[in-house]
Amino acid sequence: MGIEIRAIHKYLVNFLKDQVHKAGFNKAIIGLSGGVDSAVSTFLSTEALGKENVLAVMMPYKASSPESRAHAQQIIKQLGVRNVLVDITPVAEEFKKILLDLDRVRLGNVLARLRMITLYDFSANENALVIGTSNKTEILLGYGTLFGDTACAINPLGDMYKTQVWELAKELGVPEEIINKTPSADLWAGQTDEGELGFSYSDVDKLFVEMIDNARSDNELFDLGFEKEFVVKVRTRIRTNDFKRKLPAIPILSKTT
Amino acid sequence: MGIEIRAIHKYLVNFLKDQVHKAGFNKAIIGLSGGVDSAVSTFLSTEALGKENVLAVMMPYKASSPESRAHAQQIIKQLGVRNVLVDITPVAEEFKKILLDLDRVRLGNVLARLRMITLYDFSANENALVIGTSNKTEILLGYGTLFGDTACAINPLGDMYKTQVWELAKELGVPEEIINKTPSADLWAGQTDEGELGFSYSDVDKLFVEMIDNARSDNELFDLGFEKEFVVKVRTRIRTNDFKRKLPAIPILSKTT
Repeated sequence: MGIEIRAIHKYLVNFLKDQVHKAGFNKAIIGLSGGVDSAVSTFLSTEALGKENVLAVMMPYKASSPESRAHAQQIIKQLGVRNVLVDITPVAEEFKKILLDLDRVRLGNVLARLRMITLYDFSANENALVIGTSNKTEILLGYGTLFGDTACAINPLGDMYKTQVWELAKELGVPEEIINKTPSADLWAGQTDEGELGFSYSDVDKLFVEMIDNARSDNELFDLGFEKEFVVKVRTRIRTNDFKRKLPAIPILSKTT
Repeated sequence: MGIEIRAIHKYLVNFLKDQVHKAGFNKAIIGLSGGVDSAVSTFLSTEALGKENVLAVMMPYKASSPESRAHAQQIIKQLGVRNVLVDITPVAEEFKKILLDLDRVRLGNVLARLRMITLYDFSANENALVIGTSNKTEILLGYGTLFGDTACAINPLGDMYKTQVWELAKELGVPEEIINKTPSADLWAGQTDEGELGFSYSDVDKLFVEMIDNARSDNELFDLGFEKEFVVKVRTRIRTNDFKRKLPAIPILSKTT
């Protein structure tokens, strides 16, 4: 596995460099939360483009954990990338007056999308490309906000399961405490990804290797020892979140839609 | 042409009905600006789903034209659809404090994206699908905001040129003054689409029929009488806005990206 992750590391750095330059850019912009996914995207982008060409944007909300911000600042110090802090609280508070009875899940989507607006505005002003931070596990489960944290020009993590991101983070030298902490979208105090999903990344990634990579049927998965309820729950999430991975449906009227 | 547009009308209504129901929904939500595109999407959705299942959302900003709002209200009255007015000014004004030196083009993108957030929040609360309003001319030219006005689940107009939307609007009974007024994204006073683009929809749609539908080369287009500068300008817009029509680039690491 050691050799493989080093090959992936090299491939992703070259992919980022090629894609950014091919698109006519040389700068990257990344929303840096303090979590492991955005840390890995920032490390890869810095290696691909140089620290002077990477802008890390911290966008805390009043309920964001101070630990997250400290971790983001630790990464910035380690890499020496350009950085800016934008507190999205005042905008979010105004939105809460307009959007009635906002529960915490809907507020989480609003926050993710306000961060997208901020990143894309900076990207226009800086002539930089937005680099994504969503891993394959999140994308398959639809655990992310459409037009929010999933919005980007290039996503280096899009074909890596969460457990592979952890492995790559170690290879890149991301600080241990960022790799080892409990994953959280940090949208409200005490939120954890695994608490919301109802299963661990480690368990679901083991399932995905068989379900997705090895294309096993449900009966084969049961025979391998995966619980029926778990398999059905994950398949349902994949199916009901399929729209997040697709472009809008357009009726075909011509040969050139 | 009369028979063809009636066939398109019927096809689009059936497409909307099928797609919304297939996705497990029966309600639609549309950002109604008062322009002809969102008017046509609202007419089609109402015919497909019934007026009680369509929510038209007016989202003016302080610089929006009062005429636009009057036209939106005229459509609501004519169709009898459910409706709501959300003034996005307070949120936009807070954002202007965060996003430095915002020029009017960047502000236009912020407004389009704040409207997306509002529509998607209502859609989550209402269990409704967001129906799009971007026509094929705008999509090809990249004349729209990524993750803003182009964001939707289903876009009935995505394969219709602007001139075809005008024709369909007549067929549907959209008020004449909405069809005949100068097209504008209404992002600042005096803005017109054709002023910003530097050419008319009528001219560019004639070019698109040859360039896109008939797949003519540049030399063939010049022979047909299209000016070189115009052809180059349009091809450049199509190419440089290609990213708006695509999903993010993801490096392929597995057989199941």
